[in-house]
Amino acid sequence: MYLLETTVKQIRPLDKAAMAGAESRQDQLTKPRGSLGTLEKISVQVAGIQGRPMPHIKHKAIITMAADHGVVTQGVSLYPQEVTTQMVLNFLKGGAAINVLARQVGARVVIVDMGVAGKLPADKNIVRKSVGPGTADMCAGPAMTRSQATESLEAGIAIVESELSNGLDIIGTGEMGIGNTTAASAIVAAVTGKQVASITGKGTGIDDEQLRHKITVIEKALAVNRPDPEDAIDILSKVGGFEIGGMAGVILGGAANHLPVVIDGFISGAAALIATGICPRVRDYLIASHLSVEQGHIACLKHLHLNPAFDLNMRLGEGTGAALGIFLAEAALKVLAQMATFSEAGVSDIE
Amino acid sequence: MYLLETTVKQIRPLDKAAMAGAESRQDQLTKPRGSLGTLEKISVQVAGIQGRPMPHIKHKAIITMAADHGVVTQGVSLYPQEVTTQMVLNFLKGGAAINVLARQVGARVVIVDMGVAGKLPADKNIVRKSVGPGTADMCAGPAMTRSQATESLEAGIAIVESELSNGLDIIGTGEMGIGNTTAASAIVAAVTGKQVASITGKGTGIDDEQLRHKITVIEKALAVNRPDPEDAIDILSKVGGFEIGGMAGVILGGAANHLPVVIDGFISGAAALIATGICPRVRDYLIASHLSVEQGHIACLKHLHLNPAFDLNMRLGEGTGAALGIFLAEAALKVLAQMATFSEAGVSDIE
Repeated sequence: MYLLETTVKQIRPLDKAAMAGAESRQDQLTKPRGSLGTLEKISVQVAGIQGRPMPHIKHKAIITMAADHGVVTQGVSLYPQEVTTQMVLNFLKGGAAINVLARQVGARVVIVDMGVAGKLPADKNIVRKSVGPGTADMCAGPAMTRSQATESLEAGIAIVESELSNGLDIIGTGEMGIGNTTAASAIVAAVTGKQVASITGKGTGIDDEQLRHKITVIEKALAVNRPDPEDAIDILSKVGGFEIGGMAGVILGGAANHLPVVIDGFISGAAALIATGICPRVRDYLIASHLSVEQGHIACLKHLHLNPAFDLNMRLGEGTGAALGIFLAEAALKVLAQMATFSEAGVSDIE
Repeated sequence: MYLLETTVKQIRPLDKAAMAGAESRQDQLTKPRGSLGTLEKISVQVAGIQGRPMPHIKHKAIITMAADHGVVTQGVSLYPQEVTTQMVLNFLKGGAAINVLARQVGARVVIVDMGVAGKLPADKNIVRKSVGPGTADMCAGPAMTRSQATESLEAGIAIVESELSNGLDIIGTGEMGIGNTTAASAIVAAVTGKQVASITGKGTGIDDEQLRHKITVIEKALAVNRPDPEDAIDILSKVGGFEIGGMAGVILGGAANHLPVVIDGFISGAAALIATGICPRVRDYLIASHLSVEQGHIACLKHLHLNPAFDLNMRLGEGTGAALGIFLAEAALKVLAQMATFSEAGVSDIE
């Protein structure tokens, strides 16, 4: 709890002077003012986060956290639970979508075991932060204890701090966990107060009947656990997941260390709701990447007052959308740093 | 006219067998089927364009075409006409937004003079295809002759063919031309039949009163010239621009040479309307990048049955959105080529 508290205290408002400096430079670059839209906004935001008018990104990491979910015993997912473990092995071998996209954008993938149920091999490339062999079934009681929720948050913070020594200028969040859209929907319902049916989607591809069942399961979990909407750690412990707590910790740890955090899709969005529930100011450190097909994602982003940059009909997770978002952030900073000004280029500005 | 005719004849339907091969591989990769959305679709489309189930992109070019517009004498733009020439010099020195973004995605920028009014220096990096020192004022008569329209189209085709020898696997379209949103709006109105006011925007940033004037100017140009909605070359000659004709030629030349063409924003969209008016099949070779702030763009994309991948509030042109789209196409092909299959990775598929 000590690490969580000190981390939250370290999260400062964005640096307004740095933002003004970046904005002023954007207005002198050879383009109509504002014509690069989101790219300009991201450059100003990152200036505020890094506390310098000319921010830069060199070292990029996508932190992909895996964990299992007890609620899978309710039959909410199309894929068997062992797929969580199998996909961690796929991440290690570099064959998953996140490996491909991270390579393309020059980001390293930090693979974290936050609590998978299966057996993982001895491999130095797995960051071991397991809080337990998957959560408990949230239909029967809390998914985890409050102490486990804090443990998952602090694991996320610790990973950011440990990764700093490898160089770190921007973070992307990612996850893998069979059943985790169910937990994410429960979190979004608990935080926003919206009807479960309106924010629950088909996850990896269930049919309409399975979707109705999934909604019933989430409603039951919320009724059994009655998470306190004003207490993000309570929500995380009642209906969350270890990887979701881990990602919320990554977001808090990133913000505390002046790092922009690019959030991926629906599950990352749920983690952002937990993080902003703990520290509302952390929102300013977030960059939304894509809008997920998963239907609760839009409610989640609206609650966060974030606009997604891409709408690519994606619903994979792992950090795949975040990888694309990291590319965009890098583009934004390169525009700010490398474009010529009107006076440098001898281009006539408007009167 | 001979080059245009032979080029159109060379444009084939996409290769269905190659597309089926790519689709079948996508379905075996370690992710829920369809979960990478647009990335999967682009990979299948490019397979069909290149005629191989495992397409690849190595050499990338953004062809940025500049020209001036006689209609600027009507006071439709915020910037003086000399900015077109000044920005070409900025492209040559590498200080414009398109230079920065093209560098980031590893694309070369091919700078083309399609007909700027100002004097350009002797520089081997300018591809000289000037059809004239800017178009005529379309409020007083046709912007160009029909023969000039064909010349601009064939110049675009010739550039693609000439660039093939430098290696070319994907093209992005881009442009610079003070006054060209006026021409683009006129084209969109002529092709779609929509009210001018509904598809005319603020370009580089005019105010409401200037916008009303711009709409009047476009309405006058359409009334004076009466372009034939069924004859794309007539529309181009009456209310188009040399760079718009050039980009339409690039699209046709790209399709004829089995190259995917990523279209940029509103002006590129107007060029795509001309190209598809000449050869409807060319649509299958297009990848839409971003949705421009310019309000006629959505009508343009709808007419083309294309969905933009990004909504980044951009309105700069030059090919900046196309650069981001090229990144996305490359991501799509890397996913297809580099991801492990379920059987390779030992991951359990659904039953």
